[in-house]
Amino acid sequence: MTKPLRIGIAGLGTVGASLARLLITKSETITRRAGRPIEIGAVSARDKTRDRGVDLSALAWFDDPVKLAQDGEIDALVELIGGSEGAALDCVRAALSRGLPVVTANKALLAHHGVALARLAAENGTELLYEAAVAGGIPIIKAMRESLSGNEVSRVTGILNGTCNYMLTRMERENLSFEACLRDAQALGYAEADPTFDIGGFDAAHKLAILTSLAFGTEIDIDSVYVEGIQSITAEDIAAATELGYTIKLLAVAQKTDTGIEQRVHPTMIPAEAAMAQISGVTNAVTVDTDLLGSIMLAGPGAGGNATASAVLSDVMDLATGVVPPTFAVPPDRLVPYERARMRTHEGGYYIRLSVRDRVGAFASIATRMAENGISLESIVQRKAAGVADVASAMVVLVTHETTEEAIRLALKAISEDGHLSGDPQMIRIEHL
Amino acid sequence: MTKPLRIGIAGLGTVGASLARLLITKSETITRRAGRPIEIGAVSARDKTRDRGVDLSALAWFDDPVKLAQDGEIDALVELIGGSEGAALDCVRAALSRGLPVVTANKALLAHHGVALARLAAENGTELLYEAAVAGGIPIIKAMRESLSGNEVSRVTGILNGTCNYMLTRMERENLSFEACLRDAQALGYAEADPTFDIGGFDAAHKLAILTSLAFGTEIDIDSVYVEGIQSITAEDIAAATELGYTIKLLAVAQKTDTGIEQRVHPTMIPAEAAMAQISGVTNAVTVDTDLLGSIMLAGPGAGGNATASAVLSDVMDLATGVVPPTFAVPPDRLVPYERARMRTHEGGYYIRLSVRDRVGAFASIATRMAENGISLESIVQRKAAGVADVASAMVVLVTHETTEEAIRLALKAISEDGHLSGDPQMIRIEHL
Repeated sequence: MTKPLRIGIAGLGTVGASLARLLITKSETITRRAGRPIEIGAVSARDKTRDRGVDLSALAWFDDPVKLAQDGEIDALVELIGGSEGAALDCVRAALSRGLPVVTANKALLAHHGVALARLAAENGTELLYEAAVAGGIPIIKAMRESLSGNEVSRVTGILNGTCNYMLTRMERENLSFEACLRDAQALGYAEADPTFDIGGFDAAHKLAILTSLAFGTEIDIDSVYVEGIQSITAEDIAAATELGYTIKLLAVAQKTDTGIEQRVHPTMIPAEAAMAQISGVTNAVTVDTDLLGSIMLAGPGAGGNATASAVLSDVMDLATGVVPPTFAVPPDRLVPYERARMRTHEGGYYIRLSVRDRVGAFASIATRMAENGISLESIVQRKAAGVADVASAMVVLVTHETTEEAIRLALKAISEDGHLSGDPQMIRIEHL
Repeated sequence: MTKPLRIGIAGLGTVGASLARLLITKSETITRRAGRPIEIGAVSARDKTRDRGVDLSALAWFDDPVKLAQDGEIDALVELIGGSEGAALDCVRAALSRGLPVVTANKALLAHHGVALARLAAENGTELLYEAAVAGGIPIIKAMRESLSGNEVSRVTGILNGTCNYMLTRMERENLSFEACLRDAQALGYAEADPTFDIGGFDAAHKLAILTSLAFGTEIDIDSVYVEGIQSITAEDIAAATELGYTIKLLAVAQKTDTGIEQRVHPTMIPAEAAMAQISGVTNAVTVDTDLLGSIMLAGPGAGGNATASAVLSDVMDLATGVVPPTFAVPPDRLVPYERARMRTHEGGYYIRLSVRDRVGAFASIATRMAENGISLESIVQRKAAGVADVASAMVVLVTHETTEEAIRLALKAISEDGHLSGDPQMIRIEHL
């Protein structure tokens, strides 16, 4: 029998415990497929007594994950602590510095320090793998690192946050308000007590920044991602979208433009019959557009202990079986600096929802402001606003033809200043995927 | 600079010519990503003078691909000749026997000789790669060989034939007859002059047999695939499916049952809102159900010179960069014999279309025969048959609750013998994916 690969697991939360269980209960299958046994050499977690569904008491335990990385009798480190700084960063640095390969599921770590860590790995002749960091169980990292190597990518489009997609799906299917849906998602464990990281679009932005680097061979630039969350989406928006033949998704998009690379995360109306529109609940999906392949789409579970552990395990198996490509598909010294695109002409129109005081002339004034900014309207729907105390208010939904983001902002500013609105205007981009 | 990888290309049709063009026009990108140059060491094709969009005249040409495999100054062979026997088989055998790795896009070769060739490769310490053989540009082979390694697969479901999916999509969207659609597909180059291999379901069956081996670690058994093509699908079936909320797809399914593994290719009604229902035109898709991941779906171009060449290139890049896993994920001596499942209780009901002579009592008699076989009906629709010369005929569409394939066959046999039908009955399985 070939020499086993001994891994050290730093962090035994949901994913870490799943991984430990898999390695122990499926050891025979794993050994057969990897061609050698994969053993847990040591672990690090705060609570040694917690029931993790498998007996880990005989293993070497380290209270400090950095000590595990420095001194553990291991061939590779699996970092499942989370967070972009602190223990996660320190133990990954320690392992790479020692020449140990690292597998991580930590998107924040990659988004903030990925390029520096890739350099550290290359300097020490070792590897950094992170299949589980983006879109959980979907093998998007492997596909982009290894299968698209002859392709030039023009765009990456993803549904990358399960919490948001779950909420938008339920709002659509059950006509729920955002608030009711969030409470439910929290009760079911699909949303955190502080849901800002998910529903604010920041989780998706971290994942997008990693995909951008892989797609375009650029350094990661998390700070350049334009981020808008789903907090402003109301039941009225969902109903109007359905009526217009669209579905609202929180899309993460990275694309090449004439002036650089654009990265954005925001609610988007997409045609109800698009393949991405069928991605429901906590499922994630990524579409990659390239010169040779046209479009390919990968969809699957974006989170969950077993799905994420499966992705971590596939990285560990790659370490056990052979050679691994450079962290971001090309050696880190070949990554080019990220060049941020100017805000681009958005294609495909805009959905605008306004709460209008029902005053004579308001409607004409709004239409005039749109025209003044060169915006032509595809449809206008006026109806009584649901749940608005001010009975003199009406909801007006406008769908525009193609125009620029700037024209929309100027028009909405003018309309607000005219005093016709009883609330903030809602604006959602429409994309024809 | 590291030593180049010199490949021999056997077959310079659409895919071979695309590959040669890519290797020459994108050599800089490819070298950067592979870490070493990939060069065309020699080629083999019948016609040396044909314009392939790139100058190949300076290369070493072999009239006989077997000679290329035996004597070419190459490090790997790329087989793009096609066909399960003859030159394709001979040159692949010759290369593997010499210890040269082989990349092929040839599904028929794999379906009939895959296991024997995997053994030959293993005996000679070399590799056999075939990403392009199944679902063209979709990286499904890599995903199944490398990303799902910790998972137990329970089912693989695919839309694997672009011609069939293109025709079904157009029939649905444009209300075309099968014959008109086929003529169009042939004129556009989406269907062969003799379309039997595609529309009869055989192409999909070959691809399914390969996926089955990867999914379940079994030897390939192409002869055990139950195959039904789309020839019997009429505009009436498509219209009825739409009305009932379904879409008709040619699905290829391999799944584990209590008695073995079931492999089948047949037209299937799936819910119109399922993700697979949105896979339109020549696009392919594969869904894999596993214990850890739940379901993952990959979708993309199933054919085309550039897409297929891109998949071939990804295999070549894997050869250039490192170690490749065993042909069918486990060493060939670990593959278990394929065990064919007994015909299983089909879940999800059946769609039945009958052309009924409009005689008093026919309807009651049909309903009685169904009941006698324990089949309960979910819905019954009767209407005037479109385009039926016999004006006394009516079209009856039945949708059954869950029942067995055998019960349906017995009921249809009895109904036919009762003499109520003016044509063959149509039967399409319904699946709720």
